[in-house]
Amino acid sequence: MPSPPPAWVQALKPTEPQGTQLLAQERAQSKVDVEKLGELLHTKKALQKQDEILSVLKSEKVFDKSQNHVLGRTERIQLALARGKRLQQLSKVHNWTETEYHVANDLVAEPTPYGLHASMFLVTLREQSTPEQRKIFYERAANYEIIGCYAQTELGHGSNVRGLETTATWDPSDQTFVIHSPSLTASKWWIGSLGRTANHAVVMAQLFIAGKNYGPHPFVVQIRDLESHQPLENVYVGDIGPKFGYNTMDNGFLLFNKLKIPHINMLARFAQVDKATNKYVRPASPTLMYGTMTWVRSNIVLQAGGVLARGVTIAIRYCAVRRQFQDRDAKAGAEENQVLNYKMVQIRLLPLLATMYALHFTGRGMMRLYQENQKRMNSASQADQEKRGAGPEELRAGSDLLADLHATSCGLKALASTSAGEGLEVCRRACGGHGYSSYSGIGPWYADYLPTLTWEGDNYMLTQQVARYLLKSARAVLAGKGTGNDTSRILQAYLARREKGASFDILGNDSDIVAAFAWRTAHLTFETLKQRDVEKRSWNSLLVNFWRLSTALSQYIVVRNFYEAVTSPELTSSLDPETAGLMRSLFRLYSLNTLERESSEFFSSAAVTVRQIGLTQTNEVMKLLDQIRPHAVRLVDAWQIPDWQLDSSLGRSDGNVYPDLFRRASQENPVNDLVFDPYPWNENVLKNAAPKSKL
Amino acid sequence: MPSPPPAWVQALKPTEPQGTQLLAQERAQSKVDVEKLGELLHTKKALQKQDEILSVLKSEKVFDKSQNHVLGRTERIQLALARGKRLQQLSKVHNWTETEYHVANDLVAEPTPYGLHASMFLVTLREQSTPEQRKIFYERAANYEIIGCYAQTELGHGSNVRGLETTATWDPSDQTFVIHSPSLTASKWWIGSLGRTANHAVVMAQLFIAGKNYGPHPFVVQIRDLESHQPLENVYVGDIGPKFGYNTMDNGFLLFNKLKIPHINMLARFAQVDKATNKYVRPASPTLMYGTMTWVRSNIVLQAGGVLARGVTIAIRYCAVRRQFQDRDAKAGAEENQVLNYKMVQIRLLPLLATMYALHFTGRGMMRLYQENQKRMNSASQADQEKRGAGPEELRAGSDLLADLHATSCGLKALASTSAGEGLEVCRRACGGHGYSSYSGIGPWYADYLPTLTWEGDNYMLTQQVARYLLKSARAVLAGKGTGNDTSRILQAYLARREKGASFDILGNDSDIVAAFAWRTAHLTFETLKQRDVEKRSWNSLLVNFWRLSTALSQYIVVRNFYEAVTSPELTSSLDPETAGLMRSLFRLYSLNTLERESSEFFSSAAVTVRQIGLTQTNEVMKLLDQIRPHAVRLVDAWQIPDWQLDSSLGRSDGNVYPDLFRRASQENPVNDLVFDPYPWNENVLKNAAPKSKL
Repeated sequence: MPSPPPAWVQALKPTEPQGTQLLAQERAQSKVDVEKLGELLHTKKALQKQDEILSVLKSEKVFDKSQNHVLGRTERIQLALARGKRLQQLSKVHNWTETEYHVANDLVAEPTPYGLHASMFLVTLREQSTPEQRKIFYERAANYEIIGCYAQTELGHGSNVRGLETTATWDPSDQTFVIHSPSLTASKWWIGSLGRTANHAVVMAQLFIAGKNYGPHPFVVQIRDLESHQPLENVYVGDIGPKFGYNTMDNGFLLFNKLKIPHINMLARFAQVDKATNKYVRPASPTLMYGTMTWVRSNIVLQAGGVLARGVTIAIRYCAVRRQFQDRDAKAGAEENQVLNYKMVQIRLLPLLATMYALHFTGRGMMRLYQENQKRMNSASQADQEKRGAGPEELRAGSDLLADLHATSCGLKALASTSAGEGLEVCRRACGGHGYSSYSGIGPWYADYLPTLTWEGDNYMLTQQVARYLLKSARAVLAGKGTGNDTSRILQAYLARREKGASFDILGNDSDIVAAFAWRTAHLTFETLKQRDVEKRSWNSLLVNFWRLSTALSQYIVVRNFYEAVTSPELTSSLDPETAGLMRSLFRLYSLNTLERESSEFFSSAAVTVRQIGLTQTNEVMKLLDQIRPHAVRLVDAWQIPDWQLDSSLGRSDGNVYPDLFRRASQENPVNDLVFDPYPWNENVLKNAAPKSKL
Repeated sequence: MPSPPPAWVQALKPTEPQGTQLLAQERAQSKVDVEKLGELLHTKKALQKQDEILSVLKSEKVFDKSQNHVLGRTERIQLALARGKRLQQLSKVHNWTETEYHVANDLVAEPTPYGLHASMFLVTLREQSTPEQRKIFYERAANYEIIGCYAQTELGHGSNVRGLETTATWDPSDQTFVIHSPSLTASKWWIGSLGRTANHAVVMAQLFIAGKNYGPHPFVVQIRDLESHQPLENVYVGDIGPKFGYNTMDNGFLLFNKLKIPHINMLARFAQVDKATNKYVRPASPTLMYGTMTWVRSNIVLQAGGVLARGVTIAIRYCAVRRQFQDRDAKAGAEENQVLNYKMVQIRLLPLLATMYALHFTGRGMMRLYQENQKRMNSASQADQEKRGAGPEELRAGSDLLADLHATSCGLKALASTSAGEGLEVCRRACGGHGYSSYSGIGPWYADYLPTLTWEGDNYMLTQQVARYLLKSARAVLAGKGTGNDTSRILQAYLARREKGASFDILGNDSDIVAAFAWRTAHLTFETLKQRDVEKRSWNSLLVNFWRLSTALSQYIVVRNFYEAVTSPELTSSLDPETAGLMRSLFRLYSLNTLERESSEFFSSAAVTVRQIGLTQTNEVMKLLDQIRPHAVRLVDAWQIPDWQLDSSLGRSDGNVYPDLFRRASQENPVNDLVFDPYPWNENVLKNAAPKSKL
């Protein structure tokens, strides 16, 4: 690394007022209770635990982040494996729970090659194994005696699982399955932890018995030797190459040439091949999977708030430190203005500040609803079995709610991850030129997050499921068969009032904002239903409408959850009135800003008037920006994201932005060890390099 | 590199229909004349020259692109310098013109460390030097005897040039300038080619004479020794570190400790310090700079079309090859559908296809207007000097037009670069999971393009200049002092008809679409003028409106230019009627899709009715998608972007997508040379590595 700068450079300070002073000033002008708000968001216990884990990680040299952005891919992935190993070791030493291990992983904030082993491989083995299989596979995997991955997606087949080409053919003669890749496009592709790390894979393959296809099923397949780690015969496996982000993960490819695996290797909890009869035994209760997916998606919604919070924290702190130009209406000789004072910056960042809270509360709301319902259904199911009380009705209500949660979680996953991903890029640009530096901390984080917009259901594909559900619900409501869930409720409410029309007081009454979002959703639903059922329009021609419909429903749910959170006793009783009031302002900003961006749908559904939109735009949103602005820094402080996790010069909590950028550029940047030979007629790139060096 | 796969893998083919067949089928179903359209866009001569240069580059090993995405930053930047050197050498050998050299650079498609030397350094020396200075500086620089950069931006000062801190103080005692960095934030920052390559810099510094500040001026400063390439004393210089993209460029920092430079080193064409009197001599005609900036921005608009074309070419070809799901209304057993057939994909990609054409024609239109006006003004200026004819009036008209071009080029630069940058990301996502692979060719290109949204005027900052100009024009028009330029014209037309109201037939008459965009712009302008001048609202509170205003004007100009291009004899006479008709459809798609996205402004200005928007959305845009879809592949083919330049497995012109992805992953990916030790309790990362290896 380069030697330290000369004394005259070391003596230089940034001009006054420095970032440290400006952030101190920001914090002095607001009374938001950062501690209390942080505890409301994350719980006191979780924040303490995070501190403990952080101090363990910071003392380990392998987690030093300073060279993350300059290493080539082969170096980075080796370092990531070393980190993954150390995390496992520390997890054992400190007796971390699974949650605590994931907290540590989040603090390190980059994928490790164990990522898919520790999630999908273990989860699938645990949930889809028979007791016998749990012993053979799950227990060894949990001890890292075997390392695995989850191999579903193929080179030519992403979203459409039914289109998978890999086959598992039952061979009654020796009672094995033959795993085979019939074409190049059958190659498993994108499989995390597969490329270089895993020695086993759960392979999703079309199950064939006596020439009949029973659809995709999971098989445990050993792919590498447990000692030499070389691929087994008739297995071709490797890493799929460099990516936009996620380069510390070995996403892999995998091909099979008629590889035989024993009967026990088909995960058999929900379906199996009977060895005696060579017959397929039907799967039990597929709704269980249903629940898991809902859970995973609700988690993505919750995490999206935290993902966005990193970008918003960085951008708001830096825009409070960065100063450019005088206010045009200011007196001559005024100092340069903090960038955060400009309305054009506020309108980009403060709605995102509101969004991160909105997504957090929505994710939490979804998960709570899901858990309560699971509990209720379990006890109803028991009551049903014991033939007492209102079991069956309770069960039906529960499964209606689960269906509702499942559909809405699809739309919310799409909305939340898109908002977070695109929001991060808005934050990066709001930092001006320095946002482009890797030391901003936003770019690498954004690049690693982007796959979330595609996996667990592509964000565009998912919207079809939501629309299908809405159309189905609308048909039921029209037929007088609406269920008791919220979707039926808003559709019914709309129908009851449709003739009279809406007259929501969105500027005077917060609950009317929620009602306006519900109204617009219901209106679009019935419009689309008419196009499909009456005008008989093709499914394809309606895809764009479906996407709009899903967005409308999801925005309504976010607005509703946010409203419920800011009016909940849990919030209002644990926060001082000023902070609670600010939460209310954030709710209004998120809702009214969204309403304004989507205004044409609100007009055309007659949920609001043109005049209301005009007032929202020119008065109300501007007023909210003014209200929230003085508290912006404390409102991001409350998320309590450690500096070490942010890894950002711009977003440092102490505001010492410019010295830190300078230190990293001059002291942590190996490019400054190179001495170029700058003349084009000299072949050598470096001074004193051997002639004709290979570059 | 990894050894070739076993025979059974080599024998595998993608499932039918393969990409090659699908693209052949796409091309067979359309009669768009790819050659003729290509020549219209680029000229036949330019396309031939591109072919020649391409074959030179492809035969040079140093330009092999296969390892671009896996190298670490120190390796990449050395390779980029080697490429920059070779480009210079080839330029000499083949006697390339400056344009041809830039074509070669574009084909290599990554920044080289000579980037800022070859552009801003040379341009500034050429345009701002006295004849004496040209000899000393420009001629040596043009021969690469000295290598330079353009050092304006500072660590704490980006957009606001007046806020720069670096000083150049005239010392009459020895007739030198003292260049000094008074603080850390005064450090030059982001300066391309400075970090490791340049030995000279044009430094923008506040000129002080006898204690008085005369504002920023350019000084040529030697910063490194011409032999050893070590920094001179009292100069601290280096590379600023890793970035989101542009990592093949050595953007640098630079600090001075009272460095003395001779009088001759202040570039003196427009302003100088008189040695005899120690007085400042006033700058001549600053409008010259004005012209250069307009030219640079018009170029960004033109290039934005080409930048976006790379992404659209890749995405449209790949979406014609990729198949997912059956159409829901199709008969059972139907084959999987090409993704490009889905309306949700079309609505994302086809408007971008239209946008790339729109931006190209707009950039061309702007440049033509600029050149014609320069010519007219030059001859008028001569006429004026010779005291004959209508010189002065012509001159005034010319400078009115130049002012109009200058303001509109600011807004267009913002709109065009934002459309291209964000459009690339839309293209990447439209490719599904594989879009995330570096082999898609979109991600790296997007990352390298993003700075364009910030430099040459931050896209948000620029919109203030546009709005200021519109308000000024509106005041003039109200006072009866409108000029003859287009902006005055649309404001006058609006006023003349405001009482009667608009009744544009946007669905029946294409010129009415243009008129509706003009109307909306004029309406917003007068609304905003009222807020500023009558309601006396603060500048800051109007920034968001200004941004909307600038967007509205810029969209109008794009729509107008596109309309003029598709109705021009140049286009209609050189293309067959079917292709010319498709150009017209692209115009309509761009315009109506934009109108729909901005519909609330079109409503509230009463440029169109709610019913018209409804019809646009549900009927007209869908119809246009149907019309354009069969020609999509040929319409991107016509841009004739060579495969070698695209560097994309997904966007290959032969459609051989999956075999190419597979080849690159398995054969060009050095990660597959690593053999991991996967067990967390073993410290080593690689099998057979020395114990306790440093990673």
